[in-house]
Amino acid sequence: MTAPALPVDLFDLVIFGGTGDLAVRKLLPALFHRFADGQIQPGSRIIGVAREGLDDDGYRAQVRAALNGAADKQGDKLNDFLKRVHYRPLDARKDNGWDDFAKLMGECPDHVRVFYLSTSPELFVDICQRLGGYGLNKGQSRVVLEKPIGHDLASANRINDDVGQVFAESQTFRIDHYLGKETVQNLLALRFGNALFEPLWNAGHIDHVQITVAETLGVGRRGPYYDHAGALRDMVQNHMLQLLCMVAMEPPASLSPDAVRDEKLKVLHALKPINETNAAQLTVRGQYRAGAAEGQSVPGYIDDLNADAKSKVEKSGTETFVALKAEIANWRWSGVPFYLRTGKRLADRVSEIVVAFKPVPHSIFTASAGPLAQNRLVLRLQPDEGVKLWLTIKHPGPGGLRLRHVPLDMSFAEAFGVQQPDAYERLLLDVVRGNPTLFMRRDEVEAAWRWADPILAAWAAGGEAPRPYTSGTWGPSAAVALIERDGRTWDEDFEQ
Amino acid sequence: MTAPALPVDLFDLVIFGGTGDLAVRKLLPALFHRFADGQIQPGSRIIGVAREGLDDDGYRAQVRAALNGAADKQGDKLNDFLKRVHYRPLDARKDNGWDDFAKLMGECPDHVRVFYLSTSPELFVDICQRLGGYGLNKGQSRVVLEKPIGHDLASANRINDDVGQVFAESQTFRIDHYLGKETVQNLLALRFGNALFEPLWNAGHIDHVQITVAETLGVGRRGPYYDHAGALRDMVQNHMLQLLCMVAMEPPASLSPDAVRDEKLKVLHALKPINETNAAQLTVRGQYRAGAAEGQSVPGYIDDLNADAKSKVEKSGTETFVALKAEIANWRWSGVPFYLRTGKRLADRVSEIVVAFKPVPHSIFTASAGPLAQNRLVLRLQPDEGVKLWLTIKHPGPGGLRLRHVPLDMSFAEAFGVQQPDAYERLLLDVVRGNPTLFMRRDEVEAAWRWADPILAAWAAGGEAPRPYTSGTWGPSAAVALIERDGRTWDEDFEQ
Repeated sequence: MTAPALPVDLFDLVIFGGTGDLAVRKLLPALFHRFADGQIQPGSRIIGVAREGLDDDGYRAQVRAALNGAADKQGDKLNDFLKRVHYRPLDARKDNGWDDFAKLMGECPDHVRVFYLSTSPELFVDICQRLGGYGLNKGQSRVVLEKPIGHDLASANRINDDVGQVFAESQTFRIDHYLGKETVQNLLALRFGNALFEPLWNAGHIDHVQITVAETLGVGRRGPYYDHAGALRDMVQNHMLQLLCMVAMEPPASLSPDAVRDEKLKVLHALKPINETNAAQLTVRGQYRAGAAEGQSVPGYIDDLNADAKSKVEKSGTETFVALKAEIANWRWSGVPFYLRTGKRLADRVSEIVVAFKPVPHSIFTASAGPLAQNRLVLRLQPDEGVKLWLTIKHPGPGGLRLRHVPLDMSFAEAFGVQQPDAYERLLLDVVRGNPTLFMRRDEVEAAWRWADPILAAWAAGGEAPRPYTSGTWGPSAAVALIERDGRTWDEDFEQ
Repeated sequence: MTAPALPVDLFDLVIFGGTGDLAVRKLLPALFHRFADGQIQPGSRIIGVAREGLDDDGYRAQVRAALNGAADKQGDKLNDFLKRVHYRPLDARKDNGWDDFAKLMGECPDHVRVFYLSTSPELFVDICQRLGGYGLNKGQSRVVLEKPIGHDLASANRINDDVGQVFAESQTFRIDHYLGKETVQNLLALRFGNALFEPLWNAGHIDHVQITVAETLGVGRRGPYYDHAGALRDMVQNHMLQLLCMVAMEPPASLSPDAVRDEKLKVLHALKPINETNAAQLTVRGQYRAGAAEGQSVPGYIDDLNADAKSKVEKSGTETFVALKAEIANWRWSGVPFYLRTGKRLADRVSEIVVAFKPVPHSIFTASAGPLAQNRLVLRLQPDEGVKLWLTIKHPGPGGLRLRHVPLDMSFAEAFGVQQPDAYERLLLDVVRGNPTLFMRRDEVEAAWRWADPILAAWAAGGEAPRPYTSGTWGPSAAVALIERDGRTWDEDFEQ
């Protein structure tokens, strides 16, 4: 039995970059699923805009092709959905097509309007200014910004300032799809819906936290972008810090957007600085070289970059892997390290948070009972979602009191047989509802850059190349040393 | 995968009352199971003694009949087991048969000797004195005493003194089969093998504890005994107080017998007295009348008593039901009520302990998320064994952050597909091993009587009859009022 999905208000959702990769792979399937589930009323519209000269039918054919997998046995629903789909060719930097687009929008003046900017950030300011100029920001309008929000604090500020000239902060939804994951929602339910966890959720009882975002893919076609970003900007500054905040924040007074985001902001402000004085001790950078991924031999990062005919580089200082030890300087977390690691071409595709509790202070059991293991709460975000608590119980059956360490499923996803909705499904409807709780407020983005910039600066000043690691491994051995020298170990129990 | 069952030393186990109900229903099947599992070496012997004039083969035929259910597909093992079974006719109060019995025992002077007194307590002293007199208490000998250990403090002292003339306290195993339950062992593993529970295991985080031992049966053939005992003596003074102690005790420094029993004793000493001044507020007595049990109409208690042709009573002041509110006056438990209830002819057959945690101090969730429920740890002892933790999680699937209260299996019994050993299997082997951790020490029995006697005295002084309740219900309504006036409710979620 799942919670019924309540319909949202009528809306027009405009996807800038409507023919792009994100739109086709994520946004349109997400919208279709919510439509098929009855959560999107038939009067709502989805409007793709891009430079390609297509008409409604041409775009619908593209959307139909994109949805064929998702919509296998729902032909009727797919046809109904496609009737809600429109397209207008548009140039973000010229006035071509804007009159026509504005006319289309004007047909439904009472709809909630969502402008989803799934384009290069360089176009954000042009798009927003034209949205303003053509009088389209009216009624209940919101703008959705995809990452990256800038390249550093200064560029993030510029984007936020530019968008802010047209859209108020309350209308601006900076999306981080990690926050839309079922597991992140369940973390909130577990922490604040039970009397069991919050009293233990502090330095007195938690030994450390690990956050891993590991990919098996290389940079693929994103090479040119990626080489200017690197793992810290691409993953740590946004997704991983957001997860860290959800784990570490104080209990908000409510789930109202600002109550939650105020608490997250406090965590970001309390992060201990990592800079030239300590970056060498607290961070490890890596770059993959040739190796194997999922049984196939794969090229190294430089060869991946040069797969693009336009590129011909011999080396790059960009990290495709980063591991670091973060600390939060407040009463709750003093002395509890948060170990973060992320990388491409690693041994497994997995995103998870491990909250490792302290060992029991004293064992009352005899040696024959077997060793005691630490309790761990494992919040898995990818590839499957779920929450497991590792617990010590009595080994069932005869044979005396022997101990066994077992994982308890705290999410019940399997038991309920539920297909978890994609994070974008949840987040897109939150935008329509006007609920920004799970979106990043401007000051959060800025605080995250304020912490990340000195790390980037320290690396640049240090001048050391990223450590090479073989594709298909867990990154450079220095990343293992980073945690092992504290007497701890990266969690790699991914099978259970 | 279960923990392998390690064999115990060679032993001779003598069952006094070897043809009796407990021997046939519990002890012999338990021994057979451990034998079939390889835990009892073939050289060990099981010796039934009683007044019936049987020989080995006659007794073996009885044992075979008793085990036929248990041994269905293990014919060879049953034959092997029966070879280990012997019988000697014996009179506890005369010397008849003792020479022969002593000779049999003398054949294996190096075996551990267990004398299991499954007889009326009036015979304990005679049996022990003859065991002493015939020189049978030597080497590693132990005596096992079945309940009841007395009828009050004075009579318990007499029994313990008498037995103590022959057997040292370290040789004396007062059995309470509730302590041999898998669930009780798992309680130890959960409390002291995890960092998660012990910090919450106190008045700061636990709202109250409930212990229920409910039977659907009436007094049956035990009427004459039962009418002199009543529910407080039959269940509360021993089994339920033992369970209360296992829940409430401070962490012992080890699982050594005295470490655990010292902690249990401290709990018994800390129980607030219930006496004439407060028994009316803190206790409820009941006696069943005719009603229905498991779909059949059944007679009331008085009719059950009179089913024995020798009896012809018109009324009885004996309680077949008792509910009470106990409190433990120490730092850990101050203000946390322990509600106990037990009775015959109740609505369900169930024994369980419910540890109810306090509600979360403040809900951050919106009303649409649904109500928050209290966390409860439910330790089930009968009819099936298992431990469940009721937890709040996110309702899986789309539809926003809605909460769901779910039971988590903390015992994994089902997952492992294990047939739980009967409590007697565990306890009998603990006797052979000489491990009295799960047996009651003399001072525990006495402390329990010291708490129970004033309740019995208060009831006698009050002169009120037990409140009648209809068979097949949960006892008199006053038992509901006892807990409801504190704003709490008896747990009756027995289906999950």
